[in-house]
Amino acid sequence: MEKKISTAVIKRLPRYYRYLSELLDQGIDRISSGELSRKMNVTASQIRQDFNNFGGFGQQGYGYNVDYLKNEIGKILGLDKQYHVIILGAGNLGRALANYTGFIKRGFLVCGIFDVDPDKIGKSVGSLRVQDMSELGTFVRENPVEIAALTLPTSKAPGVAKELLDMGIYGFWNFAATDLHLPEEAAVENVHLAESLMRLSYNIANIPHESEGDKINEKE
Amino acid sequence: MEKKISTAVIKRLPRYYRYLSELLDQGIDRISSGELSRKMNVTASQIRQDFNNFGGFGQQGYGYNVDYLKNEIGKILGLDKQYHVIILGAGNLGRALANYTGFIKRGFLVCGIFDVDPDKIGKSVGSLRVQDMSELGTFVRENPVEIAALTLPTSKAPGVAKELLDMGIYGFWNFAATDLHLPEEAAVENVHLAESLMRLSYNIANIPHESEGDKINEKE
Repeated sequence: MEKKISTAVIKRLPRYYRYLSELLDQGIDRISSGELSRKMNVTASQIRQDFNNFGGFGQQGYGYNVDYLKNEIGKILGLDKQYHVIILGAGNLGRALANYTGFIKRGFLVCGIFDVDPDKIGKSVGSLRVQDMSELGTFVRENPVEIAALTLPTSKAPGVAKELLDMGIYGFWNFAATDLHLPEEAAVENVHLAESLMRLSYNIANIPHESEGDKINEKE
Repeated sequence: MEKKISTAVIKRLPRYYRYLSELLDQGIDRISSGELSRKMNVTASQIRQDFNNFGGFGQQGYGYNVDYLKNEIGKILGLDKQYHVIILGAGNLGRALANYTGFIKRGFLVCGIFDVDPDKIGKSVGSLRVQDMSELGTFVRENPVEIAALTLPTSKAPGVAKELLDMGIYGFWNFAATDLHLPEEAAVENVHLAESLMRLSYNIANIPHESEGDKINEKE
């Protein structure tokens, strides 16, 4: 792909992928941009514009071939590859991620989980055993690892991320409430839960007030 | 606040709040927009424009008063209020959220966790006990609840969200891999982990390749 695709388009691709997966699960194998537009609550013209970035995916006759479209978007997203993931931090969130079955379906294989806490080291998490952080270097040398999920304390995350980068890991799924400040060669995806909760707080505080007893009208 | 603030500005406010909290923790009580700009890696003009939406927060002499600025942004975000949160789904993620101490600090009080699984009902999660989903209606009638965190299976989430809305809950923190399709009166914040992981996958697949042996230059 020579053309530079905008970040906004990339941000939307996973949502297309999710909807196309749902359609396939429902046994729907063709869909028009109009129908997809109604389901996803975006304009049909937006969908066509987004898809045109990738050559349009050949809408012919009645709409898109759902399976083909899903696979093509999957390839753009790199989901045709297998990724090996290690989790740094075996707290509640780290363990939740280790047990998250949605990973496997998308080609992400959790192959290690690490912590510094002696109470956690050696404990089972799914099919894995929590390893001592001091074994991290050896593990990364001896096993393929492309992604590190960071569920570490805020103060530790940037330092550990730099160590991992030096070991040759370039993908970071960062759950720590801090920015990692890594060089551009690193791919960083932040999940800042506290910030997400603050946006929710803002939106609740700014819900348009109705007078008591007003009926809420469903949009659908 | 009469003026309608753009979504992009709102999205940035939690990050300002996070940085200002960090500055306070470090004992820094004044900061110029230039310094804040370097720390946050956004332009100083962006910062001034964002803050001008709220009257500018009175930068006087040498920079902003960090404590004042943090509190003002906190008020805009509704963080001066207390929210009661229930968690629907006591799986790994639901339990991780229930134990997340960052909540309390920001004024979010987890007061209930519910599941349908007999193996989970009655078990302790932090200071809470997992309740049977059938007790949800009674609980919501008898206790103040403003936010429901949904860590339910995809197929269940939209239905439960509608029930909760009918019970008078308007805030939804949605972790299920689906859109809730609620009326506009509801405040919905989605955390789609699978989509986040797909964006990471895309970014890894599109890291600019360097020839073997090239040194990676840190930007900082």
